[in-house]
Amino acid sequence: MSKVLIVNSGSSTFKWKLYNLPDEEIVAEGMVDRLGQSNSVFELKYNGKKIRKDEAILTHEAAVQETLQMLISSRAIESYDEISRVGHRIVAGGTIFKDSVVVTPQVIQQISDLSELAPLHNPSQVAGIKAFEKLLPGVTQVAAFDTSFHQTMKPVNYLYSIPYEYYEKYGARKFGAQGISHRYVSQKAAEFLHKPIEDLKIISCHLGSGASIDAIDGGKSVDTSMGFTPESGLTMSSRAGDIDPSLVAYLMKKLNIKDVDEMVDILNNKSGLLGISGVSPDLRDLISTRETNSRSELAIQIYVNRIVKYIGSYISLLNGVDAIIFTAGTGARNAEIRAKIMEHFSYLGIRIDEQANESGTGIHRISSKQSSAEVLVVPTNEELMILKDVVRLTGDQDSEQDTDDEIEAAGMAYLY
Amino acid sequence: MSKVLIVNSGSSTFKWKLYNLPDEEIVAEGMVDRLGQSNSVFELKYNGKKIRKDEAILTHEAAVQETLQMLISSRAIESYDEISRVGHRIVAGGTIFKDSVVVTPQVIQQISDLSELAPLHNPSQVAGIKAFEKLLPGVTQVAAFDTSFHQTMKPVNYLYSIPYEYYEKYGARKFGAQGISHRYVSQKAAEFLHKPIEDLKIISCHLGSGASIDAIDGGKSVDTSMGFTPESGLTMSSRAGDIDPSLVAYLMKKLNIKDVDEMVDILNNKSGLLGISGVSPDLRDLISTRETNSRSELAIQIYVNRIVKYIGSYISLLNGVDAIIFTAGTGARNAEIRAKIMEHFSYLGIRIDEQANESGTGIHRISSKQSSAEVLVVPTNEELMILKDVVRLTGDQDSEQDTDDEIEAAGMAYLY
Repeated sequence: MSKVLIVNSGSSTFKWKLYNLPDEEIVAEGMVDRLGQSNSVFELKYNGKKIRKDEAILTHEAAVQETLQMLISSRAIESYDEISRVGHRIVAGGTIFKDSVVVTPQVIQQISDLSELAPLHNPSQVAGIKAFEKLLPGVTQVAAFDTSFHQTMKPVNYLYSIPYEYYEKYGARKFGAQGISHRYVSQKAAEFLHKPIEDLKIISCHLGSGASIDAIDGGKSVDTSMGFTPESGLTMSSRAGDIDPSLVAYLMKKLNIKDVDEMVDILNNKSGLLGISGVSPDLRDLISTRETNSRSELAIQIYVNRIVKYIGSYISLLNGVDAIIFTAGTGARNAEIRAKIMEHFSYLGIRIDEQANESGTGIHRISSKQSSAEVLVVPTNEELMILKDVVRLTGDQDSEQDTDDEIEAAGMAYLY
Repeated sequence: MSKVLIVNSGSSTFKWKLYNLPDEEIVAEGMVDRLGQSNSVFELKYNGKKIRKDEAILTHEAAVQETLQMLISSRAIESYDEISRVGHRIVAGGTIFKDSVVVTPQVIQQISDLSELAPLHNPSQVAGIKAFEKLLPGVTQVAAFDTSFHQTMKPVNYLYSIPYEYYEKYGARKFGAQGISHRYVSQKAAEFLHKPIEDLKIISCHLGSGASIDAIDGGKSVDTSMGFTPESGLTMSSRAGDIDPSLVAYLMKKLNIKDVDEMVDILNNKSGLLGISGVSPDLRDLISTRETNSRSELAIQIYVNRIVKYIGSYISLLNGVDAIIFTAGTGARNAEIRAKIMEHFSYLGIRIDEQANESGTGIHRISSKQSSAEVLVVPTNEELMILKDVVRLTGDQDSEQDTDDEIEAAGMAYLY
């Protein structure tokens, strides 16, 4: 028996799930919230019990240490040796990482070097990897990137219409994000439909607090709504999505803002559903206040509007669609939003089965038999996708894992 | 017989056409190029002849004066009295001007007050109006706005997902542009199809050096690709169109730009086809260099790509489409670009008639008989649209026109 820990080291949270192999069952899971603050919260769920500790956890290393110790003391594991591998979710992989990779010192350096593309995330994730290096010396680690899936995009889709040298010199291009989720749900959709993914034109709508839409042709990401950063594209909880870039300059003047980063911060953290409604970044709060607050209703309408337009643009880009997928918090759980979006596609002969939309659970079809395209709800599972990458890259055997050094040595041997 | 002068006072050009009424024939036309510089060029075409004068024309007043004098000396008119009215194209009408209007002192002030929305254009246009006030005292003037047609947009489409108070306090919203053209071609298309415009879902593609796409439902603009300014939306000659707004901050740092306006200038004047190709802002130059310059080809592909996506997004927004219109320089004249765009809509059953696309002239259908939607080429004519507004607002009689003061007095009389 081998266990794999899948972790997401954020700047202020540290989330993890411990999986058993080969059955892919979750053994335990938990998180550290408010990481880096004096009022951090540690949580662990194992065997139907939930442990919660309020204590200051100031560093990623402390978060990893507490997690490992609590896994032992809760009896989720008996020894650290049971954890054969650790998989990490990494936000920005730039153009370097076109797939998940086994972590080497070079990989750590590269992830660190890409921090400019994700200033809050990549450094935290490097800190997470290094903590495991120290506390579980020799454990094999795998890095899975939110951007890798979109590396199949072609220049016509990933380039902006700005001076070309900004792409050459500064890497100013579309990277997209949420690729682990889009990859997972598109693969699950193909399985569900019993069709080879190579034959499918899929539009995947990941609608969570962050949200993006991906045009997937034959299993490959062709275009996606997030851009150079995850700020652009759809209306999100607190992110503006697409705006006229001239507004950045106009608003800086009006608001007397001198530092453009301050404006970008507003577009990331004070905009979206929160900015329009003035009530909350959470769509559920807007739904519960729509009757009394017209701006809550307006925010919901704008949210739907932008999704409709992106789906439409990608149907044209792909010249058709076989399946539309809804996933993540809102996408998987909010039947009304899905219905409102899909109303705009009756022109194409896409029809929703109200009953299936309202009451289905798990992965399920919400289009009717008469529909010209499949519409599916596919709950996403990014951790499971990373787990599958860990197994794909390092084997599913319960064998002793190579250490980084041994892998490097093996690589050297192969080269010579 | 009454003549109407339709003028477009730009910051460095002054273009005009003199129309005869009621036949709407062009009597003479011309322009001042490099207005405000010592090497200005005056041109006038009348009766098959072209007059050109190289001379410094430094102000809008000088441009109007030269134009009026040359109309006399070329014998296009015998007396200034023949010019009964002047129609002006105005770029920014904000939320004030939902239709064209007869110019009053208040209107001039309002256009001037809206200069922040079009810093280069509105002041020039005010200068043009004032020059005619001075040189043709008492002449009736009409202002037609590029934004008015889009004032039918609803908040769900014109609002950005930014803090709502930026809309309330600073008017940060989508205005769109090129509305005179979209209005004209959509009306012509309905006439051509012998259908009431109220029954049509139209997508109008104005593809010139500036370019925008308009979703028109029942004759009303529902959404359009230009935004707060004409910078956003499609890839244009030298405008970037939509980009991730975070790139504004990222590039300012990389390029060591301190003033955000400098970045906006790059997005307006050094981007688009010019920026991608490094060759030219003119699509024709890219077509002629595509074989030898891969970036010319890339720019063409990106240009088409963005158009395809906007058309697709608006088809979904309208939940279908009855007619797609191509107009302006590229839209009306480039069959290859039209064909490449429409390839992406075969999923909808839209079919292009190659012969009609290649060889048609004037307003003509390029979709085949089997096509599920009409695809039309409709040459735009913004001056004619403004002329029609002049007639609609001030009558088509050859009567003596009221002066501004008399109109105001009449208004006052009506109020009391």
